[in-house]
Amino acid sequence: MLERFAAGDVLAASRAMSTIERGGEGAESLLDALYSKTGRAWRIAFTGPGGAGKSTLVDGMIARERGRGQTVGVIAEDPSSPFSGGAILGDRVRMARAQGDAGVFVRSLASRGSAHGLSSLAGELADVMDAFGRDVVILESMGVGQAEARVRYMADCTVVVLTPESGDDVQTMKSGLLEVADVIVVNKSDRPGADALAADLKSVASLRGAGLGGWEVCIVQTSATGGRGIDELGEALDAHRAHMDSGGRREARRREALRERTRVMVEERAREELWRDPTLRQQFDAILEAVVNGRTSPHRAARDLIESRRRG
Amino acid sequence: MLERFAAGDVLAASRAMSTIERGGEGAESLLDALYSKTGRAWRIAFTGPGGAGKSTLVDGMIARERGRGQTVGVIAEDPSSPFSGGAILGDRVRMARAQGDAGVFVRSLASRGSAHGLSSLAGELADVMDAFGRDVVILESMGVGQAEARVRYMADCTVVVLTPESGDDVQTMKSGLLEVADVIVVNKSDRPGADALAADLKSVASLRGAGLGGWEVCIVQTSATGGRGIDELGEALDAHRAHMDSGGRREARRREALRERTRVMVEERAREELWRDPTLRQQFDAILEAVVNGRTSPHRAARDLIESRRRG
Repeated sequence: MLERFAAGDVLAASRAMSTIERGGEGAESLLDALYSKTGRAWRIAFTGPGGAGKSTLVDGMIARERGRGQTVGVIAEDPSSPFSGGAILGDRVRMARAQGDAGVFVRSLASRGSAHGLSSLAGELADVMDAFGRDVVILESMGVGQAEARVRYMADCTVVVLTPESGDDVQTMKSGLLEVADVIVVNKSDRPGADALAADLKSVASLRGAGLGGWEVCIVQTSATGGRGIDELGEALDAHRAHMDSGGRREARRREALRERTRVMVEERAREELWRDPTLRQQFDAILEAVVNGRTSPHRAARDLIESRRRG
Repeated sequence: MLERFAAGDVLAASRAMSTIERGGEGAESLLDALYSKTGRAWRIAFTGPGGAGKSTLVDGMIARERGRGQTVGVIAEDPSSPFSGGAILGDRVRMARAQGDAGVFVRSLASRGSAHGLSSLAGELADVMDAFGRDVVILESMGVGQAEARVRYMADCTVVVLTPESGDDVQTMKSGLLEVADVIVVNKSDRPGADALAADLKSVASLRGAGLGGWEVCIVQTSATGGRGIDELGEALDAHRAHMDSGGRREARRREALRERTRVMVEERAREELWRDPTLRQQFDAILEAVVNGRTSPHRAARDLIESRRRG
């Protein structure tokens, strides 16, 4: 399979991604084998609430990249959960994008499972796209507040998509937004409140000035369905890429991303190891009885358990 | 403080909750002290996408409980993140609910931080409300797909609020929904698609039949702003409570909830302990260099690290 993968066989790449999604040892050895081939693709993450118009903007960026001969991979989180608040798109809809152009490779990702598992998995699928030789990899995810910190580590460039409906008080959201975004898109700019939202964001961004890496968050207004602002968005992405390509910024950001990914994996393995210990499982069952009977609290139970384990 | 708390001093309860929010040892010893006083309140969780109308429904349920002399505590997740996709409500708006009625105690909770941290914290604040003597504690949270599994463990009753806009394909969401919900509300029932959504959910629920605990998910249509369906919702909640109060079901569910809470705390402590180890931190820094240089993958690095720790 790796041979056919290296030869650019899309079916082999598709199978590789299915192997990653299944997880376990198969996924691990595949990722080990592919890892040295990663690092070439430029990764852009689009995030924001459901219904903000991310897919249409991503379509615009795909067309732009294809227009200059770049191959594109897309990892699209499929908002199959009713909790996402957005429209429900099936694989069929998303796959329609790729039809008739071998230079666009779309992979849907079900949004079930833990937020942490999801961002790890999306990053690993992006690795496959990268190793497969895609020039640009776009990660399209349903943004949720809790995932903000993780979003920072998913890509070389993070685009946050908002609409005038996203909230009438920029003050309450500015810190989280500016920490995470390289580019903020105010989409649906034909709706009331769009100009005011964009102006607010611009003044907040300029007050804050350049953040980590010396980049000042760029605000772009678009009306994706009408195609307005798509070129400006493309130019903002290019400007950010040029910025990152100088002064070792790209490498520094990737280093932080790898640190975060490795840290998460270490914790995951340590967690699995913890529950593999039969003594701990036995002690847990015993102390749970005490919790249920009100003799100790969950906090105290956990503390006692871990302390007794440390003492051995 | 504990004395004034026990005497029903709202300020003391408020301070207790601030202590919990700050976390650390102060929070732990307070929770330890209060834990034996918990277990009396009936806990109801309302969850669903932003803009579904949860707050208005909760207001209706507060009025209902107050009408029969029950005191109420509300833990309301404040959707301060732009990613939530919903309207942004400030503390002022929410606090208005409680004005002029000492029998209603509202606490807002910022939705920053990890999903896991948030549900733990909400549960702990509910413990404080419970220990403080509130008869009914309502947890109002922004639902996100990832938090579904955790939602199950937050309350004695879980209400999922949807609207006709929540999605046109019940099939894609039914499994997650039915696993988590005791009552599903189709709110904004005056909008197109509401009857069809409710009918679909009803047929799916009846096909599935009674789930764990012998309860068949109940579907209620409401139009919260017009007050329609509020009584039916109240009756559904009462029926579920009567069901849970028989056959030891309430105790069984609480046992599972305590198991989950304790498990999460054990893992949290184990994680802290892990990084407290200077040898591990040193090894991590060294192996991260190998990852950055492409000599090993994040997966392999994590595996090697944990294996060397086990042997060491």
